Amino acid sequence: MEKAVIDELVTIFGQSNVLTDREDMIAYSYDAAPVEVEPEAVVFPTTTEQVSRLMKLAYRVEVPVTPRGQGSGLSGGSIPLKKGIVLCMDRMTKVIEFDPANRLISVEAGLTTSDIDPIAAEAGLFYPPDPGSVAFSTIGGNVAENAGGLRGLKYGVTKDYVKMLTVVLPQGDIVKLGSKCVKHVAGFNTELMFVGSEGLLGIITEVTLALLPIPKHRESALAIFNTLDDAAQTVSDIIAAGVTPSTMEFMDNATLNAIQNFKDCGLPRDAEAVLLIETDGEEHSAKAEMVIVQSQVEKNNSRDFKIAQSTEERDKLFAGRRVALNALASVRPNLILEDATVKRSVLPEMVRGIIAIAQKYNIQVGIFGHAGDGNLHPTFLIDQKDKEEMARCHKAVDELFQLAIDLDGTISGEHGIGLEKKPYLENQIGAAGIKILQDFKRMFDPKNLLNPGKMFDMPGESA
Amino acid sequence: MEKAVIDELVTIFGQSNVLTDREDMIAYSYDAAPVEVEPEAVVFPTTTEQVSRLMKLAYRVEVPVTPRGQGSGLSGGSIPLKKGIVLCMDRMTKVIEFDPANRLISVEAGLTTSDIDPIAAEAGLFYPPDPGSVAFSTIGGNVAENAGGLRGLKYGVTKDYVKMLTVVLPQGDIVKLGSKCVKHVAGFNTELMFVGSEGLLGIITEVTLALLPIPKHRESALAIFNTLDDAAQTVSDIIAAGVTPSTMEFMDNATLNAIQNFKDCGLPRDAEAVLLIETDGEEHSAKAEMVIVQSQVEKNNSRDFKIAQSTEERDKLFAGRRVALNALASVRPNLILEDATVKRSVLPEMVRGIIAIAQKYNIQVGIFGHAGDGNLHPTFLIDQKDKEEMARCHKAVDELFQLAIDLDGTISGEHGIGLEKKPYLENQIGAAGIKILQDFKRMFDPKNLLNPGKMFDMPGESA
Repeated sequence: MEKAVIDELVTIFGQSNVLTDREDMIAYSYDAAPVEVEPEAVVFPTTTEQVSRLMKLAYRVEVPVTPRGQGSGLSGGSIPLKKGIVLCMDRMTKVIEFDPANRLISVEAGLTTSDIDPIAAEAGLFYPPDPGSVAFSTIGGNVAENAGGLRGLKYGVTKDYVKMLTVVLPQGDIVKLGSKCVKHVAGFNTELMFVGSEGLLGIITEVTLALLPIPKHRESALAIFNTLDDAAQTVSDIIAAGVTPSTMEFMDNATLNAIQNFKDCGLPRDAEAVLLIETDGEEHSAKAEMVIVQSQVEKNNSRDFKIAQSTEERDKLFAGRRVALNALASVRPNLILEDATVKRSVLPEMVRGIIAIAQKYNIQVGIFGHAGDGNLHPTFLIDQKDKEEMARCHKAVDELFQLAIDLDGTISGEHGIGLEKKPYLENQIGAAGIKILQDFKRMFDPKNLLNPGKMFDMPGESA
Repeated sequence: MEKAVIDELVTIFGQSNVLTDREDMIAYSYDAAPVEVEPEAVVFPTTTEQVSRLMKLAYRVEVPVTPRGQGSGLSGGSIPLKKGIVLCMDRMTKVIEFDPANRLISVEAGLTTSDIDPIAAEAGLFYPPDPGSVAFSTIGGNVAENAGGLRGLKYGVTKDYVKMLTVVLPQGDIVKLGSKCVKHVAGFNTELMFVGSEGLLGIITEVTLALLPIPKHRESALAIFNTLDDAAQTVSDIIAAGVTPSTMEFMDNATLNAIQNFKDCGLPRDAEAVLLIETDGEEHSAKAEMVIVQSQVEKNNSRDFKIAQSTEERDKLFAGRRVALNALASVRPNLILEDATVKRSVLPEMVRGIIAIAQKYNIQVGIFGHAGDGNLHPTFLIDQKDKEEMARCHKAVDELFQLAIDLDGTISGEHGIGLEKKPYLENQIGAAGIKILQDFKRMFDPKNLLNPGKMFDMPGESA
């Protein structure tokens, strides 16, 4: 990068908020996806105005800019693929306004998502989306990826809570989108175009989120099944009985064994499936729902069903689920964590299909995830140094995504497209779908400078 | 319109689905807003393919097309302002798929919204958004306007239930957007761009909606207050106590008197405000919430509080609210029903401000609406033949919208911008906000042929 550009960055951000040393670049060359590209500079804004000045500079000198939160994304969204400048938002962490009367909180985009709840809790409120990264990912990153989590079935995902955004557009304009009102129909839903846009359309600098009252009570239970079909039928029957659990987590036999090898969590090695189910709300209501859950579990031949009688018992029931990913990670040197998602009615077909694909390519797989959402995390256990195994694994992943598409599902439930799933997106949404995304991108970013090369290629751009 | 174009319309739609007679045009020249423009032809598609062929024709011969459901919109969205063709969707009424296992229903856009619930109810499900027009408006119109209703605070609005859309773009491409999955992050949230787009960006032909389990129980109550501030404080205190009522309707003194003059509903003529409050869910939970409601109502000096003990008693408590609009309509020859919306924390300022504006311009006003949403319906009672009064009323409406904007609210909570609020939109979202809307419009509809002249002007277009 030219020295004149770096000098301008220093003018905008101050010397202490601009990095250009090689060793610093390495730290910003990767996120939680297995790709590495070093940027040429990293900047740390503390105001929206600075972000605007940066984009005006980038547009003038035609340097790519890649926004980044905490680099915890799973699809490569924050990799500076075309080099240039990494715009690291993690020093914009202010709470702008907590407004309990309207159940709203406005924060800067770099705030860690889990920092919201302690503030909200002072007024008996909480922020429902709870991605696995909630303790370290930024709220701006969550919005850019439309993050999900365990409570999606009952509480929805990030987009269901975004009320207003302050966005710096690629050419430097600052816009405030959305409304703090419960109802608002003045103009298009422009703010929702930026939710899940993966940093391609603008830089989110401030977020106003809706909050909900903390449920007064929670019931937690573990159900063990001899067969996958019994577990899947239970999920369907609970939904059909009109219950919407706040959590309905699934773990398959391979995951159970990986957990037990990792740490004894009291889980059965011979069960085909386990469900962790929670209901919440007013105490009587949560308990009444759990009674219905129990009846559906027992109707479907569960071999064991335990309701936690205390927080300690709840922690014990959930201990296996909490270590599941680490346990699977310990089986082989590496893992590939996917999030292909289907309608919950076809979960059994999906799980059987994943197991068949893994067998066909002789790859170890563990399956866990959010059964109520149909949002599974099939996790392939591999050794990246074994080129031959990796080739088989890539074929397995290809077939996994095609299976999700064939079952009318989606290649990504909550991790995003980024670099990881870019080759598969057209299979799902078609050439017409890609064209619309390109049109949106061109409209906002005609020079293709903001997070270029992600999600889809622009015409003339090579993959 | 040239005969050759009409001949092509007949080829596409069949003779019985094309109208061109003058007397037929009059029926499609207006909706529920006070503007009239006659189209040159009206067509009735029965397939998405026909809509696509129409838009290709319209683009070729450069004739404006205005989509229409049942013409029940309140902001003039279906008026064929630039004449041309009205595309009337009310013969596309098929239920495509009811999928209770995934709590989804897919229907054609011309289906009447209230026709969904009887189908959903067979599996214990319901479609929550309930705009006042629910018994006659089409679901496609509801999606295009992002319709609200009485249950917005607890259950949200139309956009919270739209999972997939089939859309014919202005140039004739047919696209399917969104996903049936609970979680889906493959591409931008394009489907949500069409929700509330008022027929400017594309023609919605099919809709897949999320459904919820029917609440097992409902508690209904009426609270009467001597002062407006007591009622407003009660709304705040109920929310602060962690209760989210399914309905929290407000009526002011002028509305109460209009109702009592229209029909004796047992409402007090000297109260400043009445709240109708409902809680729902599991029976014990709904009742427990109503106990909290009652304690907050009584803490705030209510002069009366009644909980309905039966459906009949509920109907009696709600009788006044049901006739409120008709009652206000009977006071003067005409009325102007607005939907300026604010955060509920500033409801008292808003109500006092509206009353002050009405007094300043010597216009009668009644205020009722959805207090939990901050979505009021200030209703100006006027005689359209009285030019001098109309001039005063227009000034009052101008000030009303400015008041909503000054209070950080929105000029439209649920009726849309259309023609009625077009002059006010820039005051709310600014020139930068208008430019983004124009950019979206230009991207989809470069010739400005689909519902032209609504919501905002394109550059060079006159208001």
